[in-house]
Amino acid sequence: MAEPSAAYTELCTMLRQAGHLGSVAELVNWDQETYMPHKAAPARAEQQAIMAGLVHERRTHPRLGELLAACEAEGADAASDVGANLREMRRDYDRVTKLPKDLVAELALVGSQAQEAWKKAREKSDFAMFKPWLEKMIALSRRKAECLGFGVGGEPYDALLDLYEPETTAKDVEAVFTPLRGRLAELIAKVQASKTKVSAKCLTAKIDPAAQHAFGLVVLKAMGFDLEAGRLDTTTHPFCSGFAPGDTRLTTRYRDEMFTGALYGTMHEAGHGIYEQGLPKDKYFGQPLGEAVSLGIHESQSRMWENFVGRSKGFWKWVLPKTRKHFGKALVKYGVKDLYAAVNTTTPSFIRVEADEATYNMHVMVRFEIERALLAGDMKVGDIPGEWNRRYKEYLGVDVPDDRRGCLQDVHWSFGLIGYFPTYTLGNLYAAQFWEKIQDALPDLNKQIAKGDFLPLKEWLNKNIHRHGRRYRSAELCKKVTGKPLSADPLLRHLTKKAEQVYGI
Amino acid sequence: MAEPSAAYTELCTMLRQAGHLGSVAELVNWDQETYMPHKAAPARAEQQAIMAGLVHERRTHPRLGELLAACEAEGADAASDVGANLREMRRDYDRVTKLPKDLVAELALVGSQAQEAWKKAREKSDFAMFKPWLEKMIALSRRKAECLGFGVGGEPYDALLDLYEPETTAKDVEAVFTPLRGRLAELIAKVQASKTKVSAKCLTAKIDPAAQHAFGLVVLKAMGFDLEAGRLDTTTHPFCSGFAPGDTRLTTRYRDEMFTGALYGTMHEAGHGIYEQGLPKDKYFGQPLGEAVSLGIHESQSRMWENFVGRSKGFWKWVLPKTRKHFGKALVKYGVKDLYAAVNTTTPSFIRVEADEATYNMHVMVRFEIERALLAGDMKVGDIPGEWNRRYKEYLGVDVPDDRRGCLQDVHWSFGLIGYFPTYTLGNLYAAQFWEKIQDALPDLNKQIAKGDFLPLKEWLNKNIHRHGRRYRSAELCKKVTGKPLSADPLLRHLTKKAEQVYGI
Repeated sequence: MAEPSAAYTELCTMLRQAGHLGSVAELVNWDQETYMPHKAAPARAEQQAIMAGLVHERRTHPRLGELLAACEAEGADAASDVGANLREMRRDYDRVTKLPKDLVAELALVGSQAQEAWKKAREKSDFAMFKPWLEKMIALSRRKAECLGFGVGGEPYDALLDLYEPETTAKDVEAVFTPLRGRLAELIAKVQASKTKVSAKCLTAKIDPAAQHAFGLVVLKAMGFDLEAGRLDTTTHPFCSGFAPGDTRLTTRYRDEMFTGALYGTMHEAGHGIYEQGLPKDKYFGQPLGEAVSLGIHESQSRMWENFVGRSKGFWKWVLPKTRKHFGKALVKYGVKDLYAAVNTTTPSFIRVEADEATYNMHVMVRFEIERALLAGDMKVGDIPGEWNRRYKEYLGVDVPDDRRGCLQDVHWSFGLIGYFPTYTLGNLYAAQFWEKIQDALPDLNKQIAKGDFLPLKEWLNKNIHRHGRRYRSAELCKKVTGKPLSADPLLRHLTKKAEQVYGI
Repeated sequence: MAEPSAAYTELCTMLRQAGHLGSVAELVNWDQETYMPHKAAPARAEQQAIMAGLVHERRTHPRLGELLAACEAEGADAASDVGANLREMRRDYDRVTKLPKDLVAELALVGSQAQEAWKKAREKSDFAMFKPWLEKMIALSRRKAECLGFGVGGEPYDALLDLYEPETTAKDVEAVFTPLRGRLAELIAKVQASKTKVSAKCLTAKIDPAAQHAFGLVVLKAMGFDLEAGRLDTTTHPFCSGFAPGDTRLTTRYRDEMFTGALYGTMHEAGHGIYEQGLPKDKYFGQPLGEAVSLGIHESQSRMWENFVGRSKGFWKWVLPKTRKHFGKALVKYGVKDLYAAVNTTTPSFIRVEADEATYNMHVMVRFEIERALLAGDMKVGDIPGEWNRRYKEYLGVDVPDDRRGCLQDVHWSFGLIGYFPTYTLGNLYAAQFWEKIQDALPDLNKQIAKGDFLPLKEWLNKNIHRHGRRYRSAELCKKVTGKPLSADPLLRHLTKKAEQVYGI
């Protein structure tokens, strides 16, 4: 079609409105985390419920279904913008209309009750207290998967994974996770056996949060995050919200000691933010072509900036002298080598959120395996603690001391957030594979980073990844960008090289 | 009724939802003024339009009309909570459903065009450029008044004034404005003739905005504004937004020189905020009993804290020593007398927003008289500049140099904000009349203020004014609280006393 049809125009208008309502709902959440006075919490909960209801109403509106059918009947070229948009609009509409209202309500209700139960169970490190609630949530998640349909993979887990990583199946994940797990276990064992001891003392210098914030803004600007179209604020849990055209908000948190927590938190969220700012929202807001491919690809962007850029030698060459202005003499006795080693230590532990770049993937894989087995009916909820601890011993060589620091550590399962953990490691894998390609495409990249010139990298990402929106699936995008399907090799090469440099193995 | 009926319960639920949507819309506006990145402006305009549409849809919903009729048929005692709520719900519903959609749309469209025309006209000080637009806006406002109905007063102006000051008519306003104008003109003339020269040099000490902010928070806390249920932020134009139960947000602005600008801005908005926090929103959110009486009563609260408390000698006795901690030595060479005189100077001028406590009322009266005559058809738009300048000469003794600093100075008329100016002076009048009553009720008030003990005042306001919500009309509330109808005398006594103290007249 030369001119968009009346049906397509109406469809895009409706979705744009739904998108704006979604933005407002996100703003309401952002405000709750940043500036809302705490006595407003009860009213805010009502507001969030109302906004969520409105967004859901718009996204499931019968008129959307009629318009979609009309547009499909008009027949658009699948490779055109309209064709790509229609494909993804259909996907979204079908998915959101497949879940019956009563199931959505039950998930929300049981989820909030189970979350309370989880809190108490974790406090007492008593899995038995949480078990009946988790059984309910697994049963509800299984019903949710059945409503969505298992898709090409044929497993219940696939239906849930597909919500976060469209058309990637548990088997696809397994195909990269299995080699990664084996070789990563070997690498971790080697690091553990190494006699090199790395000091992280330089990271514990006491630095005022205000100075850390000012320094974070310097890094953000250098990265190319547009602060006229975004912000950086402070919250308990850092996040990135890409609300709307011209409005992408990041948050981080500051501790007096351990300035790299805030620094890498900021760079991580800025990686998400640069993706959001790079999406063609001016043209396609509310449409799939203005949206991110998947959580895995989103995470590839945050992890790339955090780990591949932020934990590189070149980055510290540039940034260490910069710290003088903001941190005073806090780091003067340390050199690039000290910082590089300190931010790249590998230490197996049992707490996911404290894990390093290498071992983090093991935490993810434990959860993936257990969730998949639970949904398939191959594991019972009661078996989780044993299965959990066995895997932590096998993959990471650590003895989990109790369930509080074991299978009760994360909140996610309590409210049914199942199927999304793999996207963290998929993000690392995509990041590593893109990174090798970028090294070829930008041969001066490491020199540029050492000068604080991040623009060539940002522009490459804009051009090769961000501007496509949801035109390609993650697997397809990977192949288009790197010429190859996703593999565990690039990430393993990256982690091995760092371990060699830091631990001399 | 012992138990609320099903219809009444449903009505309250619908209004609570509409109230929450209104809160979200206000949050969206608050964010735009405080933290929104500027490139988000175009998307934000769309979001605001969508939210405004949703709120309007909820407030004009036919189901509301059905429920109202059903509740009225059930017959509630007019003096009961339900009766008072139903009376006001009916008022709101009738008013909002009386305006045809096309008129609302035309007012918005012509308003935004006229605002652009006004900007250019003001820049060039060329009233002729604005004249055709203002003629359109007056015609549309007249149509709006006809749709709403002129009410008991029988004038078109009454229909508009009623939106801001329910059931107060232009004749009611005239009855207090006429004596006020005459005697105020005499007072101003006397001050002008006085040989006492008051120095305001102490107000121009250079003080860091961060120190002013910290100081403002000290004053806010002392006033009893609950900072766990509210905030203070910085915006170009200060305002107060009472979003929801537990969420009342104030803003102010800081200039390096003239710290009283921010201080009185903060106290003014906090006066509004204390009213919002004092309304029984926990019980009645979304219902008239949880809402403010009128703009005039709202303004009486802000003006009372700003002018009657903040510009009193007692206040400076308490606060001047407090400034040492935050402002260092900036004010050490000044005494309470200096500050008291400096913040109470009377200087006729032609710019409303820069006017002092006494002369401000003259600016309001000029606008009231002109607006009223325009709507009645007794004055033509082309005659505005002449009528404006003549009044400024007569009431304030000043020669308006040009239309930019004359009838083009305010934006309000360009987007049809007509009928609300009187509420500023009504606020001053109510504040003065309440204040005299409070002096009787709290004989130690001045001593308490001099010790920074504002709680007895706040609690008196909570009990006598805030907790009633919209149970009484402003005139009725005035009579209930003070035993008398609104009069110009208390304000004139207050201003005269100050002039005597400051200018020795």
